[in-house]
Amino acid sequence: MEPITYEQLIEMLQGTSALPRARAALSEMNVVDIANLFEELESKDQVLLVFRLLSKDLSADVFAYLDPDHQQTIIESISDREISAIVSELFIDDAVDLLEELPANVVRRVLRNTDEQTRRIINEFLKYPEQSAGSIMTIEYVDLREQYTVADAIKRIRRTGVDKETIYTCYVTDATRKLLGVVALRKLLTVDEDTLIGDVMDENVQFVHTLDDQEAVTRLMREYDLLSMPVVDNEDRLVGIITIDDAVDVIDEEATEDFEKMAAMMPSEDEYLKTSVWQMARNRIPWLLFLMVSATLSGLVIARFEHAIQAVVMLAMYIPMLTDTGGNCGAQSSTLVIRGMALGEIEAKNVFSILWKEVRVSLMVGLILAVCNFARVMLFDRSGAMVALTVSMSLIVIVFASKVIGCMLPLLAKKLRVDPAIMASPLITTIVDVLALVVYFNIAVWLLGIPA
Amino acid sequence: MEPITYEQLIEMLQGTSALPRARAALSEMNVVDIANLFEELESKDQVLLVFRLLSKDLSADVFAYLDPDHQQTIIESISDREISAIVSELFIDDAVDLLEELPANVVRRVLRNTDEQTRRIINEFLKYPEQSAGSIMTIEYVDLREQYTVADAIKRIRRTGVDKETIYTCYVTDATRKLLGVVALRKLLTVDEDTLIGDVMDENVQFVHTLDDQEAVTRLMREYDLLSMPVVDNEDRLVGIITIDDAVDVIDEEATEDFEKMAAMMPSEDEYLKTSVWQMARNRIPWLLFLMVSATLSGLVIARFEHAIQAVVMLAMYIPMLTDTGGNCGAQSSTLVIRGMALGEIEAKNVFSILWKEVRVSLMVGLILAVCNFARVMLFDRSGAMVALTVSMSLIVIVFASKVIGCMLPLLAKKLRVDPAIMASPLITTIVDVLALVVYFNIAVWLLGIPA
Repeated sequence: MEPITYEQLIEMLQGTSALPRARAALSEMNVVDIANLFEELESKDQVLLVFRLLSKDLSADVFAYLDPDHQQTIIESISDREISAIVSELFIDDAVDLLEELPANVVRRVLRNTDEQTRRIINEFLKYPEQSAGSIMTIEYVDLREQYTVADAIKRIRRTGVDKETIYTCYVTDATRKLLGVVALRKLLTVDEDTLIGDVMDENVQFVHTLDDQEAVTRLMREYDLLSMPVVDNEDRLVGIITIDDAVDVIDEEATEDFEKMAAMMPSEDEYLKTSVWQMARNRIPWLLFLMVSATLSGLVIARFEHAIQAVVMLAMYIPMLTDTGGNCGAQSSTLVIRGMALGEIEAKNVFSILWKEVRVSLMVGLILAVCNFARVMLFDRSGAMVALTVSMSLIVIVFASKVIGCMLPLLAKKLRVDPAIMASPLITTIVDVLALVVYFNIAVWLLGIPA
Repeated sequence: MEPITYEQLIEMLQGTSALPRARAALSEMNVVDIANLFEELESKDQVLLVFRLLSKDLSADVFAYLDPDHQQTIIESISDREISAIVSELFIDDAVDLLEELPANVVRRVLRNTDEQTRRIINEFLKYPEQSAGSIMTIEYVDLREQYTVADAIKRIRRTGVDKETIYTCYVTDATRKLLGVVALRKLLTVDEDTLIGDVMDENVQFVHTLDDQEAVTRLMREYDLLSMPVVDNEDRLVGIITIDDAVDVIDEEATEDFEKMAAMMPSEDEYLKTSVWQMARNRIPWLLFLMVSATLSGLVIARFEHAIQAVVMLAMYIPMLTDTGGNCGAQSSTLVIRGMALGEIEAKNVFSILWKEVRVSLMVGLILAVCNFARVMLFDRSGAMVALTVSMSLIVIVFASKVIGCMLPLLAKKLRVDPAIMASPLITTIVDVLALVVYFNIAVWLLGIPA
């Protein structure tokens, strides 16, 4: 049976006669496609109607993929027993995500309808700080013992696998839940059935602690090509795993967060189209205000050199070009360093090789820009050779200084335990502006012989 | 046995007596950790010595994780037979990656030492355009037939699984290699052994074509939480798969590429520390030059209003603040739209809801900035109320215009099939600069009654 489109679904919802057909079509579809259909439904009644068309098993799976608004609509409209059924079907990490998005009164209702043990685990997981490994892990992993044979292990996987988030990587623990090793299902299928798990497991396990930053998780998973990452508590006991699909979401989130910070915004967790106008304004205003007030400094520099502008009004003409070029040069260097640090390619110990590289690059770039600029001013402007020389000499100094500042500030931020991403284009631009103007006017005063 | 550190390894390499110990230690280590050790080795002799310490199986695995320089060092120093052994052990995608990085004469030597069939496949794969699905796929997947029983399938996986890049997702094809369905190993382990593959496979398969962009691959894998993605040719025949670990690398690469473009650089595939100074300068100069020349326009606007500056020199003071704020506002909007499009959250059809959102956000932001600015100028500057009003009114118009331009240009770029990422901060800044100056000086001439 073909997957149905939104239009077909809506048509089927009109009368009651087509509902069995809709139910049958939905039951054959991929859960992600069904969740996408929900995104397009506009009325709450339609959301509920379609949700009720899903079989019990399917409904929990689809529920995990719905966006928070639809989840809330459903939770608010179904019976306590239905809530309980859904929550018990959800993986713990999805249940925790759900509860983090719901209003407090709905959370209370959900927890009231959850069995004792799940409630205890959920409550514990809700306490992990945002963006920590603990906050994104789940408990549905396969755990094995050293003394199992491979045949035992496969039997266990066959029996319990349906409820696990992944069965492809299994973790070996002792009686105290201490993590001893890891063994891939692939290995289990290709060795003799009588082999002991203790003999085939790999003891070189990569793991993280519950409080480690989620970025550390993704970095290790990427480096070691892992499908899941074990999370241990302070006593090295295995408490959960993070699967690659969740890690991929974190990778995207972290990159988006950096993009936002680097464009002078407070990071937002919501998609663009789902963020309210007011929330957007609130994310954007703080940095704009701060940068606007900081730009007062460049105004002061200009005020200080008012007489120079009065003497040679032409000088004002080159202000935007010089400050923009400085800003762009600084942005180039800072972006490369920030991104390199985010991917773990650059560390604090590389500071001197970075500095040395930027010094050479900036001299090369500055010289080429200066020559091109000199030619352009001489050919097209009526400013004369001395002004052209002033602008070109300033360019060399500005390019040099902004590249050095651009590469050093993110490293400094890291050292001070501030997120390097804020040391990006907007802040660098503001700093470089002041510097560019000071350099430019001083060179002008000196070269053009403007009296102080 | 504990993994050894770089220092321990170097010590062991000094004499010959410790080499067996080094070999034993290496044989217990994770291939990624071994590859990391190589990164720190400085002399070619050490690289070769350590490589020779690895067992044959391990050496091909480690080789796949080495950086291109080390790979080249090794290829150039080993015998034809050893090359042949390594290439036949590599997965096709790793072999293709290797050959793409090597100089032509070394490539010829490698291909000469590869068996006929592998050579044919590699040559075909090398023809796929960069960044296409075909260029990152591999052929080592498990393929099953509809008429197999689950028991047959598991037997087949046990027999051939060692050489597959993943066994966790198996693909069902017919005699003409046409892709019919997909079945997860998890499913195979939890259903009855006599079931036919045709009855358990999922026919709703997500797939891509060889020429599809690699970004489309990662978008689908993320959306459907897939561990591997099948790639088909023009006749819908299965030709390869892309595994999640390679998709994760693509996700990072694509984000890095966007970061670089958004900071006015040509994208580079190499890590910061591994890119030469000359290459870096070449990546940075073109945009800087273009933007520098474009900034001439803002110079022309200033030249046009020379008389206004001559009349009220104070006006020059606010130029950097106004152009920076415009640039920052434009960067905020364009970044959100560019990132939203990269993640597939925003599409061309959303143009009106984006525009409407930005219009409201920009009015809110502009008003707040204008009020704060008015207060600041009145309190701290000696410019007077009319100049304060001029600057604040300009702010409102500039914030509005730059946000609208910032959100529209990336959408326009997409429409024109240009990469939206270039419509980021640097280009927007340059465009907004001109606009900001025109707005500012016109308001000034009008409000301050400066004769034209």
